[in-house]
Amino acid sequence: MKALIYDGSLHLQEVSKPLPGNDEVLIRVLYSSICNTDLEITKGYMGFNGILGHEFVGEVVSKSSSLFGKKVVGEINCSCCECYLCNTGRKNHCPYRTVLGIQDHDGVFAEFIVLPARNLHEVPEALALEDAVFTEPLAAAIEIFEQIQIKPSQNVFIFGAGKLGLLIAQVFRLNGCVYTTFARSEARVKKARSMGINAELAGTLTDMDKAEVCVDCTGNPSGINLALKHLYPGGKLVLKTTVAQSEKIDLNQIVINEFEIIGSRCGLFEPALSLLSQGLVDPQPLISKTFDFKDILKGFEYAAKPNSLKVLIRH
Amino acid sequence: MKALIYDGSLHLQEVSKPLPGNDEVLIRVLYSSICNTDLEITKGYMGFNGILGHEFVGEVVSKSSSLFGKKVVGEINCSCCECYLCNTGRKNHCPYRTVLGIQDHDGVFAEFIVLPARNLHEVPEALALEDAVFTEPLAAAIEIFEQIQIKPSQNVFIFGAGKLGLLIAQVFRLNGCVYTTFARSEARVKKARSMGINAELAGTLTDMDKAEVCVDCTGNPSGINLALKHLYPGGKLVLKTTVAQSEKIDLNQIVINEFEIIGSRCGLFEPALSLLSQGLVDPQPLISKTFDFKDILKGFEYAAKPNSLKVLIRH
Repeated sequence: MKALIYDGSLHLQEVSKPLPGNDEVLIRVLYSSICNTDLEITKGYMGFNGILGHEFVGEVVSKSSSLFGKKVVGEINCSCCECYLCNTGRKNHCPYRTVLGIQDHDGVFAEFIVLPARNLHEVPEALALEDAVFTEPLAAAIEIFEQIQIKPSQNVFIFGAGKLGLLIAQVFRLNGCVYTTFARSEARVKKARSMGINAELAGTLTDMDKAEVCVDCTGNPSGINLALKHLYPGGKLVLKTTVAQSEKIDLNQIVINEFEIIGSRCGLFEPALSLLSQGLVDPQPLISKTFDFKDILKGFEYAAKPNSLKVLIRH
Repeated sequence: MKALIYDGSLHLQEVSKPLPGNDEVLIRVLYSSICNTDLEITKGYMGFNGILGHEFVGEVVSKSSSLFGKKVVGEINCSCCECYLCNTGRKNHCPYRTVLGIQDHDGVFAEFIVLPARNLHEVPEALALEDAVFTEPLAAAIEIFEQIQIKPSQNVFIFGAGKLGLLIAQVFRLNGCVYTTFARSEARVKKARSMGINAELAGTLTDMDKAEVCVDCTGNPSGINLALKHLYPGGKLVLKTTVAQSEKIDLNQIVINEFEIIGSRCGLFEPALSLLSQGLVDPQPLISKTFDFKDILKGFEYAAKPNSLKVLIRH
């Protein structure tokens, strides 16, 4: 089968079809999509070599599986299910895990993938595949609400109106809180507003503007310091940005203002499928362009452009 | 009256006795003590100029006060009581506050001080003055338990066995959790153990040693990275260190491991007085030496020595 390999350079290559191991299921990929993490990996993030990609919707082709013939999405962390972290509700942090297309596990930019059966979730029939492919990033957005309580009476600043930022904003919209998404360009403010999201230019913020909760999904290492500047004392900063760089932080302000900083990564798929199925989150405006799998390299170029949002791949 | 002034240099100076304003009370200082923050201020931290010092026990000398003649300790943040933060339970973060001996408010290294009446707490008669002077730092230790839940089933690493670290360890000891204090020197490990605190040399830690909660009270900017290294994914890091320097932090690890970082500062006085009065926290082993107020400059020299713990001042 053809697969998109990253091994220092990014290229399509003929590889053998993966063989499902114990508890694993073979899945034909139908749609995949390109995430910022994929772009960061091609800059050296995580030191990953292999088949890239972790956002997908597919069809189970293992006849022995109870999901045979069904459309599925799949959790990306393949955990040992036996260690201390797995046994204390933190499977996504299992130190022995592999991660689809990110860590020791070939990814979805290919014809077929294998995943443990327990990682799969059936896609409701009424849900379009082009929506279902957003399950993984939407789950990451919803993860914030698994981690901290957002009170509907609170005000929230969301920094960054990229692919993830616009999903996060849609989830905050459902909470009833007073949230504002801050974008760097007029075009992105317009885009967000066209999706029913409260959005403003980041440049309009003054030092006096503060929120109880700030979310940094700028994808920029300086995002954390911007967010801290606009956080009330005792407020919570949710950190979503992952980049291949360290940032200098004034630790005193964290102590003096008793800020809380919460790192936030992967989430659960069921709540994401629920919001998508009910039409409460609409990912369609996030799709910049759809490429056929044979043109995935062009898809990567397109995804790397500053104004691109989500690039979908039709397999 | 004589007072210890910091104005770029540290010196005793004759100044006028402070005049209590509206709602303020005049207090004669009986004991004070030297905190790391005092030492940091003499290195430029907070840019404070004036009479230093914020840890004290004193006697109310304003005859109009209902506490006249009583021994008192006093909260150090003097807040406006009218702003958004004061009205949402965050008086200690009032942006219009002054802070005793730290920000726009003359401190306790003097014969007399003034504080708002609402800041004062009567010292129970049975409590020795040399214990009561620890109310403020002990309140800062207890603040951790106001901010996050520490489950008695959790393991906790406390980094730093200085003045604050040894108070924090004593409070964790009361929780029943499996805590360990890590110190840099054998002597400090011995000191901690002599106080009934579980203590180990920091050098004995391996990469495999992890805790659900880490507390950084090293007073060293590198403390945060040491603590993060020993935190389980999904764990909480309480940050107590304040120093006049920024530190470079790998933000990815915070996101990937979903760490929570909680800045922690001042706490409430009542729980501290309660624990001291019941003898559940014993600050006496923390006293390295007591100086008369006229010798306070010698006290500062002594407090700055690496092996010193608390220096008390008898006024």
